[in-house]
Amino acid sequence: MAYELYYWDGIQGRGEFVRLALEEAQADYVDVARQSGPAMGTGAMLDLMKSKREPHIPFAPPFLKDGELIVSHVANILSYLGPKLGLAPEDEKLRCVANGLQLTITDLVAEVHDTHHPIATSLYYEDQKEAAKARSAAFISERIPKFLGYFEQVLQQNPEGPNHIVGDALSYVDLSLFQVIEGLRYAFPKAMKAYAADYPGLIALHDAVTGRPNITAYLQSDRRLAFNEDGIFRHYPELDLAP
Amino acid sequence: MAYELYYWDGIQGRGEFVRLALEEAQADYVDVARQSGPAMGTGAMLDLMKSKREPHIPFAPPFLKDGELIVSHVANILSYLGPKLGLAPEDEKLRCVANGLQLTITDLVAEVHDTHHPIATSLYYEDQKEAAKARSAAFISERIPKFLGYFEQVLQQNPEGPNHIVGDALSYVDLSLFQVIEGLRYAFPKAMKAYAADYPGLIALHDAVTGRPNITAYLQSDRRLAFNEDGIFRHYPELDLAP
Repeated sequence: MAYELYYWDGIQGRGEFVRLALEEAQADYVDVARQSGPAMGTGAMLDLMKSKREPHIPFAPPFLKDGELIVSHVANILSYLGPKLGLAPEDEKLRCVANGLQLTITDLVAEVHDTHHPIATSLYYEDQKEAAKARSAAFISERIPKFLGYFEQVLQQNPEGPNHIVGDALSYVDLSLFQVIEGLRYAFPKAMKAYAADYPGLIALHDAVTGRPNITAYLQSDRRLAFNEDGIFRHYPELDLAP
Repeated sequence: MAYELYYWDGIQGRGEFVRLALEEAQADYVDVARQSGPAMGTGAMLDLMKSKREPHIPFAPPFLKDGELIVSHVANILSYLGPKLGLAPEDEKLRCVANGLQLTITDLVAEVHDTHHPIATSLYYEDQKEAAKARSAAFISERIPKFLGYFEQVLQQNPEGPNHIVGDALSYVDLSLFQVIEGLRYAFPKAMKAYAADYPGLIALHDAVTGRPNITAYLQSDRRLAFNEDGIFRHYPELDLAP
């Protein structure tokens, strides 16, 4: 039975981290909110979230349905799917390390969201633009180097070599790091251009993922949505500064 | 060998979610940064984070060391410890549900942090007080009801009954929900007083956890630090509003 991925239609957002793993593994999946038909579409997703009968409703998209089981949160979905898709380390301890790295990516993604929504998710960007400028400036000067510097160090200290963030083979964490670089380059091109030389391992990993046949095919397909200003990574020129 | 918990000295913070599980289970553990002696104290924690030799350095505290393995992030630590401490469901699928719930708590805790630090972690609260007021107002009116309403619904829809958030026995997620209620009451007493009647299941769960012998003993011990204005849950009267 196909995996059912539930995520907001029209944006890459947090769902993209899951899509990349499913696409790399050529898994059978349905992107439910983007389909029409019975039990499909955004309405079906919202019905499931509001259900009074489901034993385990999710707080927010993305979530994955595998038969009766609903798995919520990106890191939890990837931790669940990783071994099934051949995208997690064999060793249980390294799986734990992979999950810790993915949760650091989760934190980074939440901070990216808050660069354009520092006050309230319910307000328009335009109504919190001044705070967004202040938060973005701090994000660019302090947080990008802290997060990317950390991932670069982990990559360089990987006992199996710097081609992968954990273990000796591609994992879902590598795919997520590709998306982090893609997203940061889209949102903050000036900042990322200035930082380009500082994270050679991460950039090499990003390029290696881009060149994988299943990923290349996915990026060229219409299943890959373009970045836009409704997603997590948004490009507002006034928030992008050279550090 | 004792578990080694690494977290900032002087605050409950994110480390408290791990402490509660270790204390409930009467596990053998060392709160490293709060001890003095060789390889103890905050210096030992920072050395480990900055290590050029460790294969898997953590991004931030809290992290747990179990022998050679370093496990980072609260939800990852609890997912790792839960089965060992008898504080996770037996069923693998329910463990996945527990992890999803814990990650929703993680998101809530990050939002609590940002009520007093909406612009930058590196700035003093006093230097972002106006943005903090706006963010706290939105947090109280929109986010507290969204999160607590969600947990209340999950509790009431638990097929095993509303005494536990998942499964038919106490889990680390129940302990974390206790801490969420404790923390919100400390930080936003006016708001939480106004919301008191809306979440009867959560309040009953909180009270049941408080009355567990190991938790009662812990709360009365000097291992339990008081809430303060260096932690995640901070009480600034100007941020606390009746919704």
